[in-house]
Amino acid sequence: MSARTSSDPARDIPEATVARLPVYLRALTTLVDAGTSTCSSEELAQAAGVNSAKLRKDLSYLGSYGTRGVGYDVEYLRYQIAREIGVTQDWPVVIVGIGNLGHALANYSGFRSRGFRVVALLDADPRRHQEAVAGVVVRPFADLERIVEEQDVAIGVIATPAVASQDVADRMVAAGITSILNFAPSVLAVPDGVDVRKVDLSIELQILAYHEQRKSSAAEVIA
Amino acid sequence: MSARTSSDPARDIPEATVARLPVYLRALTTLVDAGTSTCSSEELAQAAGVNSAKLRKDLSYLGSYGTRGVGYDVEYLRYQIAREIGVTQDWPVVIVGIGNLGHALANYSGFRSRGFRVVALLDADPRRHQEAVAGVVVRPFADLERIVEEQDVAIGVIATPAVASQDVADRMVAAGITSILNFAPSVLAVPDGVDVRKVDLSIELQILAYHEQRKSSAAEVIA
Repeated sequence: MSARTSSDPARDIPEATVARLPVYLRALTTLVDAGTSTCSSEELAQAAGVNSAKLRKDLSYLGSYGTRGVGYDVEYLRYQIAREIGVTQDWPVVIVGIGNLGHALANYSGFRSRGFRVVALLDADPRRHQEAVAGVVVRPFADLERIVEEQDVAIGVIATPAVASQDVADRMVAAGITSILNFAPSVLAVPDGVDVRKVDLSIELQILAYHEQRKSSAAEVIA
Repeated sequence: MSARTSSDPARDIPEATVARLPVYLRALTTLVDAGTSTCSSEELAQAAGVNSAKLRKDLSYLGSYGTRGVGYDVEYLRYQIAREIGVTQDWPVVIVGIGNLGHALANYSGFRSRGFRVVALLDADPRRHQEAVAGVVVRPFADLERIVEEQDVAIGVIATPAVASQDVADRMVAAGITSILNFAPSVLAVPDGVDVRKVDLSIELQILAYHEQRKSSAAEVIA
């Protein structure tokens, strides 16, 4: 076992904090790219779109408190968070379902820059086989088990239609995949010990609609 | 101005609560579809993946407290939340950038079912014009202003490459769009009064990686 306390499985970071760590990581990367070496909790909180008390509380779970009067060392904090999330590791990923969304995901530059390496693209449709997307050849879905074993894949991405998604998830779990990112509009049943996260592309639109509605009614009040 | 207090622009719901309302809405829709008429805050919290104290606090902003010993009326609570978010309205949406991701978004059934109606698909590349995606014809980007005015579009979706995204945002804002959903890996500068939300497809993968890393280190402890 690693000596790092950050991977101590007994220490629980609240799920809401875990969900914000990638957002802090992105904000810190932007600051590093802009040449910023230190930042206050207020600056970082603003860049990440949270309030600074919540930010300080979140970072305290990582043992990061900054330096009074100086703030946080941007590079070091970025490293701490990346290590905590695990994106300093290499994560081989398979994507199943190479339609429009699968193509878009295979081309998505944000995966590779965060340690996610797309090692295989799989599709049940033979017409898609041999096509290369972002340098990776599309292969038959039947190759799943062999690829997972050979490449030690722990994370699978489902970009199939909803009707196929449970079958794909079952095969992924049987092959040894323990984390699934589901883009299909479906609820997956998986055994204990397997994590599933669902991406709902409409959530952000709904948040915009909420604010848009309030802007309209504010305009009506003024009128 | 509407008489509904739910659109009173003076009453502020915390941003974190706003972000969870679509998640509650999805959980309630699943319960309705399963034929459930009432549910406890614990049941709803579990379906939505939050703790029940937070759920009760969130719903209290909407004036929803449930009935002691009975719980929440699932249908009514769904209506309350949908109204609060604004998804009981019709929201005309334009999508700019009809590559793989734009195609996937145009085909995404989750938009229409939440009140978002894709009224136009725009692309700068003439080779994409006249193609129909999900029944909507791809048109030149130059048509943006006319479409926004004719269809009263308030929400724009950017699915272009990063290099084009700021230009597209500028044109959207000039045309009168006040909410932008940005799928391009870029940070957009917009004037006050315009809301931008960014979808980062790697955030959920990073959350999975965090748990995956902890599963690996837990397995090492046992071994």
